[in-house]
Amino acid sequence: MDAPRSAPQDPAFAERVRASFALQGAMHTIGATLAEIAPGRVVIALPWRQELTQQHGFLHAGIVATALDSACGYAASTLMPAEAGVLTIEYKINLLAPARGASFRMEGVVVKAGRTISVTEGRAYALHEGSEKLIATMGATLMTITGRDDIKH
Amino acid sequence: MDAPRSAPQDPAFAERVRASFALQGAMHTIGATLAEIAPGRVVIALPWRQELTQQHGFLHAGIVATALDSACGYAASTLMPAEAGVLTIEYKINLLAPARGASFRMEGVVVKAGRTISVTEGRAYALHEGSEKLIATMGATLMTITGRDDIKH
Amino acid sequence: MDAPRSAPQDPAFAERVRASFALQGAMHTIGATLAEIAPGRVVIALPWRQELTQQHGFLHAGIVATALDSACGYAASTLMPAEAGVLTIEYKINLLAPARGASFRMEGVVVKAGRTISVTEGRAYALHEGSEKLIATMGATLMTITGRDDIKH
Amino acid sequence: MDAPRSAPQDPAFAERVRASFALQGAMHTIGATLAEIAPGRVVIALPWRQELTQQHGFLHAGIVATALDSACGYAASTLMPAEAGVLTIEYKINLLAPARGASFRMEGVVVKAGRTISVTEGRAYALHEGSEKLIATMGATLMTITGRDDIKH
Repeated sequence: MDAPRSAPQDPAFAERVRASFALQGAMHTIGATLAEIAPGRVVIALPWRQELTQQHGFLHAGIVATALDSACGYAASTLMPAEAGVLTIEYKINLLAPARGASFRMEGVVVKAGRTISVTEGRAYALHEGSEKLIATMGATLMTITGRDDIKH
Repeated sequence: MDAPRSAPQDPAFAERVRASFALQGAMHTIGATLAEIAPGRVVIALPWRQELTQQHGFLHAGIVATALDSACGYAASTLMPAEAGVLTIEYKINLLAPARGASFRMEGVVVKAGRTISVTEGRAYALHEGSEKLIATMGATLMTITGRDDIKH
Repeated sequence: MDAPRSAPQDPAFAERVRASFALQGAMHTIGATLAEIAPGRVVIALPWRQELTQQHGFLHAGIVATALDSACGYAASTLMPAEAGVLTIEYKINLLAPARGASFRMEGVVVKAGRTISVTEGRAYALHEGSEKLIATMGATLMTITGRDDIKH
Repeated sequence: MDAPRSAPQDPAFAERVRASFALQGAMHTIGATLAEIAPGRVVIALPWRQELTQQHGFLHAGIVATALDSACGYAASTLMPAEAGVLTIEYKINLLAPARGASFRMEGVVVKAGRTISVTEGRAYALHEGSEKLIATMGATLMTITGRDDIKH
């Protein structure tokens, strides 16, 4: 997936993403960290943990989605104005294989950066026994929010 | 949303769902509990917690999806044979309003219970200041898995 | 599916929907007609035709989606201001059963009527040998467009 | 989007796809043609026609989806056994820009070719005033059907 050639409107996009990520209780709870922040592209790393499993011991699909949704949302955020907030309108996730692995990598990439609506694609990979496997794909639609004090960054 | 009139194939469907739910580390971690189990319909309850928030203090969309996905998956499971496992193929979630509230109720209902493929719909409600608000809708596709030791219930 | 209690902002919503529908070459080509227009709810009727089939002789999934997408879009349009246009941002369709039947009924219902974003649900039914069967469900997200001369109604 | 490295199980996959496509009344009606058939990848071409428009004169989103769904379905079909049929379980489409153009190109690519479930991604491009523009993305889930006389190819 190629990121669009859009230049970021906010030169401090990476600091903005890091500050917002630090405020997400959910990311801390699941142990997710920011692995890469580039214009139109964000990667999140996530280790496997027993507390995040479904009944077969794989990572719960919802946890995969939680981290992938954040990767997509922050990818969109990198191309938004400094003062804008981002809200997820919807996403769809396809679970291609059980989330079996020691750790996981979630990539979000912007497909379209619109003034109001941005569209992103996400891919989740499991790192398992030395190889990397695509386990999920996501399509997410996000909205740029401006002028609302309760929705910032 | 009306559940289809299908009778459950496994009379012990509720016990089966409870036993499987108890194995989900993720449900325990996010504080979700089973509130209702009926043929073709499962409700999960979830209190708000700081550890599950996104950057604005609302419940993270991925956590809403995690609980809603489980409600949908278990709703499908109630109509499956006793020995079957269930895997989520894909889901889509629309986030209608910020997940602001003291607690949340996630309903999953079966729209079609097929031999291999089941289709469900989910709705998430926030309980906030004495009223209930629809905050998310989900459409999820699930697969009945039989004869695999690693995918049971 | 219950329509939200929103009252239409434009008392002439039905005439507006009829006028816009008449401009859709695609609806004419596939033989679709407006069967019902209510606030937050639109029904489209569609007879089976050989020209609209896939390789097994069923109605092509894309044609089901075309009519269902229009039902959803016009359902959203009924609750929009008189001067607003509507654009589909995305939709997802689940095909529950082959589209086998003499005719089809597509219902679109508004789940959330927001200022910018509306969310709708659609259901397609096949009328086959005297009974009606649910063959597809849709979730569609639409955007209210104002102040653009190329996007009206 | 890279196609998976899977080799086709049926060496006559291209002839099989062409024969099936020829049976689709809907493809003939909308003027779609097969532009490319490779293992895990199919491209469909579609000229703009007044009969396929929505109310603003753009190609109707449902028609874009119809052709894109076929591209995805046939992409999956190229990697299936000779005797298998393919049915679309669900798809989601994001409409990134109005379908304005003289002609359109729809690409379907396989992301996962499973025994029962295949997952594909589609992209629709408009050819407009000498340049090509991405106007829609799709994620589609398909099912391999065997042993049913009514669902072949």
